Amino acid sequence: MSSRPTAAAVIIATEVLTAKVQDANTPVLARWLRARGIRLSRVVVIEDDVDVIAAEVRAASAATHVFTSGGVGPTHDDLTMAGIAAAFDVPVEPHPALLQALEGVPAGPRRDGLRRMCNVPRGTELLYPEGHRWPTLRLRNVFILPGVPSFFEKKLEALGPWVLGPPLFAGEVVTLAAETDIVDQIDAVVGRHPGVSIGSYPIFEPQGSHTRLTVDGPTRQAVEAALRDFEASLPVSSVRSVRLPEG
Amino acid sequence: MSSRPTAAAVIIATEVLTAKVQDANTPVLARWLRARGIRLSRVVVIEDDVDVIAAEVRAASAATHVFTSGGVGPTHDDLTMAGIAAAFDVPVEPHPALLQALEGVPAGPRRDGLRRMCNVPRGTELLYPEGHRWPTLRLRNVFILPGVPSFFEKKLEALGPWVLGPPLFAGEVVTLAAETDIVDQIDAVVGRHPGVSIGSYPIFEPQGSHTRLTVDGPTRQAVEAALRDFEASLPVSSVRSVRLPEG
Repeated sequence: MSSRPTAAAVIIATEVLTAKVQDANTPVLARWLRARGIRLSRVVVIEDDVDVIAAEVRAASAATHVFTSGGVGPTHDDLTMAGIAAAFDVPVEPHPALLQALEGVPAGPRRDGLRRMCNVPRGTELLYPEGHRWPTLRLRNVFILPGVPSFFEKKLEALGPWVLGPPLFAGEVVTLAAETDIVDQIDAVVGRHPGVSIGSYPIFEPQGSHTRLTVDGPTRQAVEAALRDFEASLPVSSVRSVRLPEG
Repeated sequence: MSSRPTAAAVIIATEVLTAKVQDANTPVLARWLRARGIRLSRVVVIEDDVDVIAAEVRAASAATHVFTSGGVGPTHDDLTMAGIAAAFDVPVEPHPALLQALEGVPAGPRRDGLRRMCNVPRGTELLYPEGHRWPTLRLRNVFILPGVPSFFEKKLEALGPWVLGPPLFAGEVVTLAAETDIVDQIDAVVGRHPGVSIGSYPIFEPQGSHTRLTVDGPTRQAVEAALRDFEASLPVSSVRSVRLPEG
């Protein structure tokens, strides 16, 4: 699993930390990356502060791909461009192609606001996904996405051609046994199947405690072998469901 | 706002990063801290890996309070105790009072599983919130909470006596104007009210673009003054709602 491309997310959102809104973008990003075979290794939610953004983006940029969310509007608390520029020690400057897109907007406060949004870190690439009029911004391996969830999702979905990893297969077994009762069986399966990633999650329901064992791996065969091995290590009556990898 | 106590969260949850579940604990923590006047400054979601947990907990411990979530069960992927111990360079060892709590459990795999959960970093304190039979664990300024959302919330709610900051007041104005159209008014209010924190968030609705301006501060008077100042800087017809601080 270690050769799989990685991704890191930097959610720039004081509004999430102050409980004004919930972060809707991380779940969307996690699902999208997983479907594309990319391993999301870390998500950090931070305040709108230039130094903090710079430090976090720099740290995150060790991943194959970085996704930032938020802080790209025209107001005082929109500091993502300055933060990303500081992360890579480049200036912020107006991008000619973005200025050009402004040409149809009549003079006035709206145009002034949009004009501020043409200031981006030097070296920023403009990506033009099919069917999108407005470009998506990328500096090095950092995709710079808006925080508004509907815009975030739409821009993310269009990045398919730029982000793709090897296939990932997944399955799970849900048992009727409590996790504390089957620790040895889980450990044994983990030991016998080093090529897959195994997760064990307790489920607490009024009727009793159960366990969900998840298996992710690079081939259908490897995932299925671990699931079948675990299933065989339990009494038949304690298996609630088995989901084999699809595809 | 800078003298306010801070909090950092470390969500140890490969299952969130792999999109198997959504993180339900961060929103609960953010609301709880905000109600208690603590500034949540950073949340990081990481994989279940000892070295990663150690590095992230060490970094987070610069905050006044740290909350970890997850990785405290008995299985191979429960690595939080080892990670926190490594963060502070102490060994993991059985805690006598936790072992004692095991005495009522009959011998067998369940007891063996629970016994593993008695191994905690040296120096861990056991907190006994009122009405809770089982202790909550704390090492230095790190509260070690379970990942299962119902348990996380129950344990968090009981930590009131250990976590309290100065009062925080909050209000907001929702305008019918697009954010790009009122950048100058927002900037002016931010400049005139340095004692409060002001956030500006665009709202995109089918009927048009609006703006939500939020104000947080240490006194009701300071928050109300900023809200009234912003309101007065707009045409009356462009104010949709004003929410003044409560209390």
